[in-house]
Amino acid sequence: MEENEIIYGKNAILEALISGEREINKILISKTVHSDTKINKIKEIAKSNGIIFQFVAKEKFAEYEGVSHQGIIAQVSPIKYTELDDFLSYPHENDSLIILDGIEDSHNLGAIIRTAVCAGVSGIIIPSRRSVQINSIVEKTSAGAINHIPIIKVNSLMNAVEKLKKSDWWIIAADANAKDNHYDVNYNDMNFAIIMGAEHAGVSKSLIKASDFVVKIPMLKKFNSLNVSNALAVIIYETVRQKLTNNKIK
Amino acid sequence: MEENEIIYGKNAILEALISGEREINKILISKTVHSDTKINKIKEIAKSNGIIFQFVAKEKFAEYEGVSHQGIIAQVSPIKYTELDDFLSYPHENDSLIILDGIEDSHNLGAIIRTAVCAGVSGIIIPSRRSVQINSIVEKTSAGAINHIPIIKVNSLMNAVEKLKKSDWWIIAADANAKDNHYDVNYNDMNFAIIMGAEHAGVSKSLIKASDFVVKIPMLKKFNSLNVSNALAVIIYETVRQKLTNNKIK
Repeated sequence: MEENEIIYGKNAILEALISGEREINKILISKTVHSDTKINKIKEIAKSNGIIFQFVAKEKFAEYEGVSHQGIIAQVSPIKYTELDDFLSYPHENDSLIILDGIEDSHNLGAIIRTAVCAGVSGIIIPSRRSVQINSIVEKTSAGAINHIPIIKVNSLMNAVEKLKKSDWWIIAADANAKDNHYDVNYNDMNFAIIMGAEHAGVSKSLIKASDFVVKIPMLKKFNSLNVSNALAVIIYETVRQKLTNNKIK
Repeated sequence: MEENEIIYGKNAILEALISGEREINKILISKTVHSDTKINKIKEIAKSNGIIFQFVAKEKFAEYEGVSHQGIIAQVSPIKYTELDDFLSYPHENDSLIILDGIEDSHNLGAIIRTAVCAGVSGIIIPSRRSVQINSIVEKTSAGAINHIPIIKVNSLMNAVEKLKKSDWWIIAADANAKDNHYDVNYNDMNFAIIMGAEHAGVSKSLIKASDFVVKIPMLKKFNSLNVSNALAVIIYETVRQKLTNNKIK
């Protein structure tokens, strides 16, 4: 039996309730929390869905110290992962995927998921090992976005990339040593997957080799690099810009 | 007398040493830390600059628990802020500034500073009140970028904006309710300052009113919004794209 997960904070819990993707077993709220629009909305949806809603002493939250829980937590069923084969069995047109090669930091993963949802990305592929997994901090940092996008967990990113290529997806790796800038690629009229690498190591060599394009974000000052979630935001929004401005021209 | 600050982690300390912008009083390293290229570089620069370098028992780091210090900390002089008048007294051409209206989260501020340096931004303006200040987490999250860009602290953002406008800077506010998308503005051939708002409240109404342009980042899925550092990355790199592609056309 898989254990319950805990999600924290008003936004994360509200998004989980609204999306209906997660089975919520119980919501605990500290008696010291003042009601506001979001808390009221949480209460309302919880009530109409028969979800247990308990007011508890703030001491109950002692074990969650160090987490910005805003005095509200929810016990939810574990996230449901999507199979890559299932994802590919649906029709895709001008869709995008993000492949994360060994992200280590929960905050980065959460921010990437949040940005991916805003940018209309169709799914996120993470490896089952050597990567941070979906945890409470990821949920919280994603502001609940985790419930709005399929998370595809695979044993081998290389196998996933090969499978995508066979299904006519284009593979784009982000790498500081690339020749092309991220805006040199035309992202329109194709399904594409962008590979972002780990915070320090970057995208692994074998995956770069398997990619159709390799792009870098230009650095105007000699400095190490962007934070990985910021780098993803820059690249994915260039694809959005191209899509939206092309649509205008038509 | 101002107190020393502590900075954490290999990257932050190495960047502080390389930039030479901060007076480093002492570096403490845990005996359990294994040497690597960065640690060796830190030792080397510290030695040639006569900076005290002490190996200490890992128990010494107990007070920094919860911070990702990688077993190395440095005691440094407080950051030197830049005066807006001094900044404006230098000639500026096609320069950019970022104005942060009440950012609350240290990680966000650090990531913004890091991205700003990568994108060649000329300075960052923060208010002296109702905002997170430069602290150890900001330094760490910025990966040392804090030492590569002037931080301008002002008592009133509105006064700063008025002063910038009088000096022929264009003011651009980011706001979710804007009509224009961030890529609809031509950022070339002008000095401009981009105002980013607090995580929840956004840019204050008075500053939006004082702005020459208001832009939004388009949302492809109905979802709350981007994390503020990701949003800044998207906007500032659109200005970089415009600058670099225009240069190519010439």
